[in-house]
Parts: sequence; structure tokens; C-alpha cells
Amino acid sequence: MIKITLVQLDNYGPWTEELGEDREADIQVLQSELYADLQRMFSAKGGLLFFTRFDNMLAVSNGINLKEHEVILRSIARRYPVTVSMGVGLGETAYEAQRTATRVLQSKGSAQSSERRAVLAYSDNGAKEGYVQIAHIDVDDFTSNVTDREDAYKAMYIISNLSTLLMKLSMNKGALTFFNGGDNFISVCNGLTEYDFKEIIDRLETSVGLKLKAGVGFGRNANEAMSKANKALSKIRRGLVREPVLFLGGPHE
Amino acid sequence: MIKITLVQLDNYGPWTEELGEDREADIQVLQSELYADLQRMFSAKGGLLFFTRFDNMLAVSNGINLKEHEVILRSIARRYPVTVSMGVGLGETAYEAQRTATRVLQSKGSAQSSERRAVLAYSDNGAKEGYVQIAHIDVDDFTSNVTDREDAYKAMYIISNLSTLLMKLSMNKGALTFFNGGDNFISVCNGLTEYDFKEIIDRLETSVGLKLKAGVGFGRNANEAMSKANKALSKIRRGLVREPVLFLGGPHE
Amino acid sequence: MIKITLVQLDNYGPWTEELGEDREADIQVLQSELYADLQRMFSAKGGLLFFTRFDNMLAVSNGINLKEHEVILRSIARRYPVTVSMGVGLGETAYEAQRTATRVLQSKGSAQSSERRAVLAYSDNGAKEGYVQIAHIDVDDFTSNVTDREDAYKAMYIISNLSTLLMKLSMNKGALTFFNGGDNFISVCNGLTEYDFKEIIDRLETSVGLKLKAGVGFGRNANEAMSKANKALSKIRRGLVREPVLFLGGPHE
Amino acid sequence: MIKITLVQLDNYGPWTEELGEDREADIQVLQSELYADLQRMFSAKGGLLFFTRFDNMLAVSNGINLKEHEVILRSIARRYPVTVSMGVGLGETAYEAQRTATRVLQSKGSAQSSERRAVLAYSDNGAKEGYVQIAHIDVDDFTSNVTDREDAYKAMYIISNLSTLLMKLSMNKGALTFFNGGDNFISVCNGLTEYDFKEIIDRLETSVGLKLKAGVGFGRNANEAMSKANKALSKIRRGLVREPVLFLGGPHE
Repeated sequence: MIKITLVQLDNYGPWTEELGEDREADIQVLQSELYADLQRMFSAKGGLLFFTRFDNMLAVSNGINLKEHEVILRSIARRYPVTVSMGVGLGETAYEAQRTATRVLQSKGSAQSSERRAVLAYSDNGAKEGYVQIAHIDVDDFTSNVTDREDAYKAMYIISNLSTLLMKLSMNKGALTFFNGGDNFISVCNGLTEYDFKEIIDRLETSVGLKLKAGVGFGRNANEAMSKANKALSKIRRGLVREPVLFLGGPHE
Repeated sequence: MIKITLVQLDNYGPWTEELGEDREADIQVLQSELYADLQRMFSAKGGLLFFTRFDNMLAVSNGINLKEHEVILRSIARRYPVTVSMGVGLGETAYEAQRTATRVLQSKGSAQSSERRAVLAYSDNGAKEGYVQIAHIDVDDFTSNVTDREDAYKAMYIISNLSTLLMKLSMNKGALTFFNGGDNFISVCNGLTEYDFKEIIDRLETSVGLKLKAGVGFGRNANEAMSKANKALSKIRRGLVREPVLFLGGPHE
Repeated sequence: MIKITLVQLDNYGPWTEELGEDREADIQVLQSELYADLQRMFSAKGGLLFFTRFDNMLAVSNGINLKEHEVILRSIARRYPVTVSMGVGLGETAYEAQRTATRVLQSKGSAQSSERRAVLAYSDNGAKEGYVQIAHIDVDDFTSNVTDREDAYKAMYIISNLSTLLMKLSMNKGALTFFNGGDNFISVCNGLTEYDFKEIIDRLETSVGLKLKAGVGFGRNANEAMSKANKALSKIRRGLVREPVLFLGGPHE
Repeated sequence: MIKITLVQLDNYGPWTEELGEDREADIQVLQSELYADLQRMFSAKGGLLFFTRFDNMLAVSNGINLKEHEVILRSIARRYPVTVSMGVGLGETAYEAQRTATRVLQSKGSAQSSERRAVLAYSDNGAKEGYVQIAHIDVDDFTSNVTDREDAYKAMYIISNLSTLLMKLSMNKGALTFFNGGDNFISVCNGLTEYDFKEIIDRLETSVGLKLKAGVGFGRNANEAMSKANKALSKIRRGLVREPVLFLGGPHE
């Protein structure tokens, strides 16, 4: 089972509106620093956090227990003018796990409730953590074909469009795919097969004309799985593997 | 004329690959901190920076001269293991301005050239800076309708899809629209009329079923325009205005 | 006249005690980030901030007006769980200026008042800002003589002792000297002559057996004066000047 | 045995000199962020880091193994333009442990060697980690007696003088005492008795006229010991204990 943590800022929208009209740059700085800060704390325990919508973030949290979640939650409460609440869920797929994480947190009150503050919610159904499967996906020759040719906003639009399509295709298979900068995507994809990836890649090539490649890794936590996915993608990039998808290892190692 | 600065990390992709396979969390922290850092420096001069793809960022830079760009560029070079280069462009529309900014930077070498480092590029065609027009756009009742009901990834997908559509519609009119967290978007939109906004909003309501509202402001720099856009949006949010679009002031104030 | 701003955290001690017993690392992170953040904002306007006791910081703020102080103060209030208040003072010497800055802030309430929040205090006696004089001081061959030979704590003790003596000697002459890392000190020293510096250096060599050197610069703001001080010290370091003190320019440039 | 890690920036002085004359604010920001960053990583593993001279920092690192040190060291190398090297030492007293840590690192090359980069040095003499003893020390009524009465620089001088004396007195007993902001000091003090603390406090009251109090705690790592020291000091502050020194627990718990 994969474990996903939803990190949600408490009553964030209403709070920002009290900050004065010239608040935008400060909000952007706050959001980015908060994400970087949380990423440091999750990754120090072997996890990996995605910025998602910034007021809602999702982490792969296998190996991080509830007490460690509490420590992270309190550290943020001490150092920021806003608090975060968290929901933790397990699932056969990443999609299921985040749905459970969302449900348990929603049951504690609205994201805009002024009463819910720094809550840690989880479902205790006795499920056990298992392995994490992660894919690192990028676009072939994006720099030479797009970044160095098209204008910067057009390049961003191409990535945004690709990202939305990747989200939809992977969600349908129970995976969660996140844009993580440049032309890179990370997919938390327990249960997906090589065939699934080839199907996704083929459909994207047909619909948007971009060729993707994917390195897939497994591990006991996000850091291990991500490292192996990087290793696999690196082999494809260096031409050591001809196929656009490489799996390194599997769930039962 | 609006002024746009493209901030591009030099030779970033190849550099990240040298960092070892367990690099992902560090890269995410680096990218976020770099963005927050640049945002602080641009906004201290009245500008506003958008994170875009993180390895390529776009700033509204009216009122920030070349020497001030240089200071920012050198401050980053001193404190990070990577450098940034910048292209600066002016245009009647934000889209044109970023295209010029991209072109002048592309002319200095590839984003993955190992020789281009910390370059400041600009076109000196005698054009003069004018006003900035910015819209702050959000979705009606997104928290109660989506965040508190749907799962977190689905909510993110809805925003990603909306973002891609908004980018396309605004790009067609010469504007640049950026997601800036939660259910908020900022559009740098010199030249767009109230009619343009209503058209965009209508089309989105028809295609994705979400109602948007937009506050539009003008100023000599991004900070002024953004502050007025916030003021306008706040009036709509508080029900002081019935229409989904409110312009405060205009380009000739 | 030199302008000094005292930045004081509001009701900081009592606040920290509410954070739980395992708070220390979070407090240290908070203090350092807050200092770095304020330093960015003061230096973006040509100023320079010293960390002092972390809950009280001192800045050279020539060229930074009250409205700009307000913007800094509000940016902190938006992004931290604690607020800062500021007192601004002018003086013929840096010592006098900080005394005035302290007095005007003290008149607004105790540092541990729970009512004083984000106050900006200044004395409006019509005095006008003038030049800034800064010295960059370091120890000859500290790395080879101390860092590479003594143990790390002993080296730190030597610097702490030296710092305390430098503070006392410079305070007696109306200057403010701050440790700024390694074996480096920055002295805000309007009015001090070459003779004053040689006297200080001689007394320290006699009492602690360390040889110092000092580059002294002048400017309209801290950044200009500091840059010239660096230039002067660099000339001494490279052996281009034989004396341990070098003045570049003077107050009437 | 207590474990101390010396974190030393590699070739830092020479590097800073290449940054241009207007470098000072950037250096201060870099140093503070680097400290905050390292503090986050050490404290995530139960350690505690002191900023010391900023180019040399000391951490209590019981419970943090060599591989975890390596991860910290590499994370810094990836995200900063400078690297750090580390020496790790064990000792009966904190002073001995830091001396060993210094010696093993010095044996790898000078702090200003351009060849030593990101080295992790340790002595493998089979010694075993034991408990950590930490004291949290502060000054009675410093805010009302000093901060609210004296000028800010004078208050800083008083603390600096006190800090230097505390360093000397504690070093003579094998302890390491660090200023950590405001009027607070943290002493890493394995082996010191209640009598030792009373002696130190008496001598300081006699020589500088300030009354101190100290809460002392024990633990398997710095975080545990520090938490208990905070608990003890809190009891004295709230008047629950009449003596100026309170020990909570002891090394054999």
C-alpha cells in the first residue's frame, strides 16, 4: 500500500484577503518558502512533497509515522503566520490513497473553517504500508525543439497542456502525475505496468506530437523509488536503452 | 508599453543530472527558494515574478532598469550553484513583450549552452515603458464546491485544465495568464477590454462549468496594477459589484 | 548625519515560551531566516543590517525613507508569526544615531509589551541625512594562525573576546562595530580618523596579540561605503598598501 | 560520550573576495540561510547546530550516523555555491569532542585549501556515544533592566561581554557555551555538576552584576536534552523553584 499525505493550509483564502491590497509578492514568497520548508522536512524522512496548488500539497509519506507528521505540523505552526492541517491515507493506488487522505481531512472541517487549525487526521483501518512506485518522465529534446525556438510563454503553454493531459490519463489508471519543473513530470504510479506507460506515451505523441520517455523505480519509500526512477531515466537519456520506458526492479524486491 | 523579463537558468538540465540519483528533493527546494529569492528582488523594485516552469520564469519589470537587473542577476550568481540569464523586452501587449524578451535571450545562446552564463540581453529599439494592466481572476465558491467536496488531486486537475484553457484564450488576445496558487490566476493583460474578459469568462463557463470573476487594475508598475486589481476583485467578492468583471481606472490615469 | 534603524521583535521572549519545550531548533531557524529576509529588504534599498542579538537588530538606513520602512515592516508581519517594530534615529555618530533610534522606540512601549505591535517610531527634529563611513576590519592570517591550528571553540573564543574589546573601544569613539562572520568585523564609524583606527589596532595588538587591518570607505548609503571599504581592505590584503589602515575618499566627495 | 560535529566552509574567505566589492549583504544572506538550512537538517535527526563564527559551526550530533552526515553534506553541495566539510569527534566532555572533531578535519587540509572539498572526517577509535547534557541559561529581568532602559548597542555589548566570560568559564570546565539570541545561552555541558553551575553564576554576578539562571537536562540526543533544559528553566522562570539552577534527571536515565 502507498501512503499519501494531503497538506492543506488552514483558512488560507480569507486570511490572505486581510493582508492589504499590495500583498501579492509576499504571498508568493510565503507559499514558495512554505513548500520548500515542508519538502525539506518530508524528504529528511524519505518522503517527497509536490506543490500541487500551493494551498494544498500532496506528499508520498511511506515510512513517516504519525508522530513525525505531528513534528512537521508543529514546526510550521511555530514559524509561519498560517497553520497547516494534514490528512493521511493508504491505498492500493496513489489515487485511492490521496482520496482517503482527502476524505479524513474533509471530515475535520472545511478548508476555510476558522476553527480547524493544525489538525492531523488519518483513517485507522489497519492497512499496512508497502512499496512505492515512481516514474520520472520527460520530453525528448524539449530544449532544442521548444525552449530554444518558441517563445517562453508558448513553451509554458505546451507544458501546461501536456501536464493536464498526463494528469487525466494517469488518474484514469490510479496514478498521480505532477509537473516538477522544466519539462519533467513525476508519476506516483503503484500498479502501473510497462504497457500502461507505453499506452500513455503513445496517446500523448498522437495528440500533442511530443515524444516522452519514462524511468520507473520501486522502493520502500519515495526517496528510494525516485532514485531508481532517475537511474532508469538516465539510462534512456544516455542511449543505453532503446525503449522509451525502463523499469528498474519491481514491487517485491 | 509593458516590459517583460524572461529569467532563464543557465544549462540547468545537464547540471541537475550530475547531482546524483537521490537529487529530487534538493532540486525542488532549490527551485522554490530561487523563485522566492528572485520574487523578493523584483518586487522590491515594484515588479512581479511568475514561477512559470521554474527553470524559466517571467516577470513584469516596468520601472526596473538594466542596472537593477544586473544587481539581481549577480546576487543570484553569488548565492546559488547555478546562474540565471535574463532577456528584457517591451511590447504593446504582454505577449509581444515576452516574445521579444525570449528572442533577445535566445540570440545569446541555447538554454543548455555551457558557455552562456549570467547574461543580460535586451533590445534597444528606443521603445518607452508605459502602463501595466493586470487582472486578478478567481473561481466562484471553489472551496465549497470543489476543495471541500472533491478529492485533492481531482481539484488540482480541474485547476490545471482551467489554467491551460485560460492560457490559450488569453494568449490569443495578447495577454499572459499565470496560475498563482489556490484557485487564483493573474493575467498581465495590457489592451484587453471588459468585453474581452466577459468573452473569456463566458467561454470557460460554457466549456468547464466554472464561474470566474476578474478585478482589473492599472499602474505604472506591476505592484500598482496588481494592488488595484486586488481592490477591484475584493469589491466583487464582497458583493459591492454585481458584474463578474470590474475595471478600476484605466491606462491614462 | 548617519541614520540607524533599530529593528526589535515584539514581545518575542514570552511568545517563544509558548512554543513547547522542543522549540529550540525552530527558533534558531526562524531567527536566521528573519534576519536574512530583513537584510534582503534593507540592502535592496542600499542599507545594511546587522544581526546583533537577533531579537534586536541594527541597520544603517541612509537613503531609506519612512514609507519604505513601513513596507518592510508590513512584509514581515505578513510572513512571520511574530511582528517587528522599528525605531529610526539620526546622529553625528553611529552611536548617537542608534541611541536616538532606541529612545524613540522605547517611548512606544516595552519590548515585551503585548500591546506594541509593528510600530514605526522616529524623531522628527529636522535633521538631515548625510554620508556614511564604514570600515571593514579583519585579522591578519587568522586561518593559518588560528583556524588551522587551534580547536574550533578556542578560535571562536578568541574572536568573541576580540569582538567584545572592539565593541568597547569603538563605542568610546562613537562607532558601532559588528562581528560579521569568520574573522571579519564591520564598523559604522562616521567621524573616526586614521589616527583613531591606528590607536584601536595598536591597543588590540598589545592586549590580545592579534594584528588587525582596516579598509575605510565613504558613501551616500551603507552599500556605497561598504563597497569602498572592501576595495580598501582588498588593497591592503594584496600588499598594495603597507599600512594596516587605508581610507578611500572622505565625507565630502 | 558526547558527539560533536564541526561544519567548516571550504575555502570560504578566498571565495568571498572574488564576489565583487558590493558583496556584503549577499554574504550575510548566504551565511544565515546556510545556517538555517543546516540547522533544519541536523535537528530533523535530533541534533542541534550552533552558528558559532558562521564559516565554522558546531553541532551536537549524537544519534546522527556518518551516512546521515554525508546526506547533509551533499545536500548543501547541491544547493550552494560553496561546499562544507565536516569533522566528527566523540569525547567525555563537549570540549574534548569538538577538539577531536577539529583535529580530524584539520588533518584533511587547511580551511583555505582549494583542494579540500566536501570532506567528511572522523576518528574511528571505537568510542561509543552516550548521553547529552545541555543547560539553557538566561539573564534575570534583562528586558526590563537592560533592553527597555539602555540603548540597543549597549545592551548588545553587555551580552557580548557576558558571552565571552561564559565561554571562558565553561571552557575551563570542559563545556561549550553558545549565545543563541536575546539574553539566552545554551551550554553543552556533559559532566558539569550543580556546584559547577553555581560557581559560574556566582562569578558572573560578582564580575558583571547580572544574575543568571540555568535549567539543565539530559537525553540521548541534543533535542531531548534541550527540551528538558527548557522545562527546567521554565520552572525557575515561573517561580516554582527558588534556586537559580535546576537539574531535571541525570545521565543514567
